[in-house]
Amino acid sequence: FLANINPELQMDVLKQVTGPKLVVCDTMNLWISERKPQLLETIKKVDVFILNDAEARQITGEPNLIKAAKMILDYGPNRVIIKKGEHGSMSFTDDSYFSCPAYPLEDILDPTGAGDTFAGGFMGYLASVDNLSEESCRKAIVYATVMASFNVQDFSLERQRILTRDEIESRFSEIKDISRF
Amino acid sequence: FLANINPELQMDVLKQVTGPKLVVCDTMNLWISERKPQLLETIKKVDVFILNDAEARQITGEPNLIKAAKMILDYGPNRVIIKKGEHGSMSFTDDSYFSCPAYPLEDILDPTGAGDTFAGGFMGYLASVDNLSEESCRKAIVYATVMASFNVQDFSLERQRILTRDEIESRFSEIKDISRF
Repeated sequence: FLANINPELQMDVLKQVTGPKLVVCDTMNLWISERKPQLLETIKKVDVFILNDAEARQITGEPNLIKAAKMILDYGPNRVIIKKGEHGSMSFTDDSYFSCPAYPLEDILDPTGAGDTFAGGFMGYLASVDNLSEESCRKAIVYATVMASFNVQDFSLERQRILTRDEIESRFSEIKDISRF
Repeated sequence: FLANINPELQMDVLKQVTGPKLVVCDTMNLWISERKPQLLETIKKVDVFILNDAEARQITGEPNLIKAAKMILDYGPNRVIIKKGEHGSMSFTDDSYFSCPAYPLEDILDPTGAGDTFAGGFMGYLASVDNLSEESCRKAIVYATVMASFNVQDFSLERQRILTRDEIESRFSEIKDISRF
């Protein structure tokens, strides 16, 4: 997982990895404005690119997120995941689209680290099942959503520090229930 | 269905209806700012209140939509449906929450009438099944989403005029597929 940092460093890290099963990349507005050519070079080499709605619009110049996602897929990654905060997230490949609801929260204490926690939940689930099917990726996005929802309910890692597996599974089931019809 | 108009007129219409099975109400920013007491009186008497995210925030003064929805339920209706345009919609009762994705559209020609079309799809499905269960209401919201998605793809009623049942069912299935995990 190439966490958010200068894309030249991300590329440098990637060059040192031998035969990765999955390469996922994050970024931020700073690199889109200051290191765009280098960022586009890095994205070409990754399997999954995770970014938020503002970043997707910034990198493409396209306000419509469906169009923006397709443009980003053309940059090279096999899957693009666009996070929309309280509005959930969207995952695109050339032949699939998944809309994941947000976990409904009334109080958000601190959004710091939500994006990294989302990515960690996504990677962690996929590593645990060792399978990259569309079905596994969708479940990974729901677990990512669950993990991020806990993260924003306290400062730093306070909530994760006391988090139990049962609490994680319970929110996973809740997201299943709120999207069922 | 009390479509968007001065809430005093909505109330006047409602008084002339004998034993309705379901009363649904829409509104707009103008009545929230200019006729709020009368609007709150009307909402008390309806089963379902449909509004958009900006209106939900305006009527409650609460930026968090989950909290805003709970406040609106306290005003009297049994169900509140908050529409969020490209981000889909949310339905709340005292003991249920449903998150409905938007139908993904790359080109939107004219959003005029999308809210009325959404409400029409919701009412039409419920009238066709003559059943107000949570399950039926969720399906009604998905059909509402489908109908509104067609409406915004052309001006006036042009798209609806040539719309087929198969096209409606096809988008209903697509929404099922994009939210499946």
